[in-house]
Amino acid sequence: MSLPNHFDLLATDGAARTGLLTTPHGEVRTPAFMPCATAGAMKGVRWREVREAGADIVLGNTYHLMLRPGAERIAALGGLQTFTGWNGPMLTDSGGFQVMSLSALRKVTESAVTFRSHIDGAKVELSPERSIEVQRLLGSDIAMQMDECVRLPAERADVERAMQLSLRWAERSKRAFETAPRGTMLFGIAQGGDVAELRRASARGLVEIGFHGYAIGGLAVGEPQAVMLDMIEEVAPVLPRERPRYLMGVGTPEDMLEAVARGIDMFDCVMPTRNGRHGVAFTRFGQVNLRNARHADDPRPLDEESSWPSTRSYARAYLHHLVKSGETLGAMLLSEINIAYYQRLMHDIRAAISTGTLASLCERTRVEWANGDIAPR
Amino acid sequence: MSLPNHFDLLATDGAARTGLLTTPHGEVRTPAFMPCATAGAMKGVRWREVREAGADIVLGNTYHLMLRPGAERIAALGGLQTFTGWNGPMLTDSGGFQVMSLSALRKVTESAVTFRSHIDGAKVELSPERSIEVQRLLGSDIAMQMDECVRLPAERADVERAMQLSLRWAERSKRAFETAPRGTMLFGIAQGGDVAELRRASARGLVEIGFHGYAIGGLAVGEPQAVMLDMIEEVAPVLPRERPRYLMGVGTPEDMLEAVARGIDMFDCVMPTRNGRHGVAFTRFGQVNLRNARHADDPRPLDEESSWPSTRSYARAYLHHLVKSGETLGAMLLSEINIAYYQRLMHDIRAAISTGTLASLCERTRVEWANGDIAPR
Repeated sequence: MSLPNHFDLLATDGAARTGLLTTPHGEVRTPAFMPCATAGAMKGVRWREVREAGADIVLGNTYHLMLRPGAERIAALGGLQTFTGWNGPMLTDSGGFQVMSLSALRKVTESAVTFRSHIDGAKVELSPERSIEVQRLLGSDIAMQMDECVRLPAERADVERAMQLSLRWAERSKRAFETAPRGTMLFGIAQGGDVAELRRASARGLVEIGFHGYAIGGLAVGEPQAVMLDMIEEVAPVLPRERPRYLMGVGTPEDMLEAVARGIDMFDCVMPTRNGRHGVAFTRFGQVNLRNARHADDPRPLDEESSWPSTRSYARAYLHHLVKSGETLGAMLLSEINIAYYQRLMHDIRAAISTGTLASLCERTRVEWANGDIAPR
Repeated sequence: MSLPNHFDLLATDGAARTGLLTTPHGEVRTPAFMPCATAGAMKGVRWREVREAGADIVLGNTYHLMLRPGAERIAALGGLQTFTGWNGPMLTDSGGFQVMSLSALRKVTESAVTFRSHIDGAKVELSPERSIEVQRLLGSDIAMQMDECVRLPAERADVERAMQLSLRWAERSKRAFETAPRGTMLFGIAQGGDVAELRRASARGLVEIGFHGYAIGGLAVGEPQAVMLDMIEEVAPVLPRERPRYLMGVGTPEDMLEAVARGIDMFDCVMPTRNGRHGVAFTRFGQVNLRNARHADDPRPLDEESSWPSTRSYARAYLHHLVKSGETLGAMLLSEINIAYYQRLMHDIRAAISTGTLASLCERTRVEWANGDIAPR
């Protein structure tokens, strides 16, 4: 059965693509960066700033939300978009990745994964079918199949076993999604670690099953960037051109530039907010660590040419003071500044692809990053 | 020497007053509630929301700011208003109160108080003259004299000694302020604990010295509300009618209603943000504890008739979830909601005084608080 396609490919530039993904809660311009609203909230950023920064879609985490406040509760409250007040498109992961990284005493069998909640120690079972059920209860616009993600480096036999299991779970996920509301989407996830042959086999298997879109999972888990880019180059050509492609858990601005140039349409990462909480700003000049004493007396903003008000108005000295003092406002402002930088980069990438100038944008951007921060004064 | 008066009394209603205080950084409508930007930042609230909530003026803490990032540094960066990006009126306290409550090994002498910084243990001396110097370096619109505040209950002899010392420090503060920039103000602080006679003597002493405005200090430090109100009634009649009156560190919405009715024009308190961080919202229905399980499935907002967007839009269930999950956004939203409630109350109070209807506003507001929260559903 061929699934309806909600993705319009608007322009390409080499392997890079820009398009429009239509979800029940609104349109998503691609390439898109999805900020992480892990437990139904961005860490330290109000929805208003997320929207103003230019985000069309955010990510919610099935693992966190099923444990607290509970998927059935969110469903009764009108779904995740209404519950949180975001009221826009939301993608939910399957929960599988967090089970592996956050919970204790997990056990993976053919049918499901059982684990203990990191909140209260309760024993929970998550099967591909339950994951889809939870994501439907959450009211997700884009659901992800459950998969098993192996931490790299790993033995090829382990990678292959997890990839094959993920493919069988992909089939079960698709069956469980058959009665999902019209307009919602299910993405399959290509696994296969750092083994080109397994990556291609995984992608081919997924395409045979057929999904609304395709993700590449199990990367950005510790391998070198070159390995990640190689794997994208293996997988992308196997995927149908007309479907959206999502590189999960990636990444730095550098990673995203490279991945877009290889045909990726969607990203998510906690880095903008996590680094913001640690005093680091993403800027045109690269990453700027506001903890550094060089900023203590500097009245200049992070980037006086930025389109984002907080980036071009607050003194570096003030941000330094907030970070050093542990004031919440420091984490709030830097998280917001970072989300805005990521969204602005996506905006510029989309514009460049539309005009066939991605290569020069990439070159200019890399030169700016390489030049580093403005000189101290 | 009679000081210029920057306060216009616009209307009265019984002992209550509404007016306009003109500072170098803008006008302040009174009665005014000043949110606390202790270390140069509201805890968990962006300046944008502080302004939109209706705050005309905020308070900065001399003690915190002189220790970090340092008064001379802030002066070099253009003053507190520029440094923080607030760019509006700012009142600074003298630092004396925090020396008493936060620092270790403090020693009070006639000339100054010496203490160890709670940040790095450094030995610091703060005299009335240095306090004024620091506040001038900060660029304060309204500076406070240094005083000694005694925790209640206390022996009368201790209260009297501190009150007399504070009066002598008031004189020294005024001398130190003589060359301050035109338009900036210095407020004296009436002390005297819970002893009516000492409170009156303190106020008379201050009026003799002459200040731009007068504060009542050393209340809201553990005494019953009735004692606080008695002390206001002792002091207010002694103060010149045409000068602004500031009740320091107060308080709950109930406290403020009572104090306004007794002639107070200005307030400050950390309660809106502190209670917000602890999951408590100030509303038309009184204080609402969002930790309570009754909110877990409640899709209704805190107050659907509120003029503040977050108060009338976010589901109680969402706020409950954020608070229970320890999400920063919970503290952010509740702090903002509380600041907005305080400002709205001040707005309503000013309007009621203007139309001579304060008594009915007070009665209506007290009935709403007494009725408590909306029924669970």
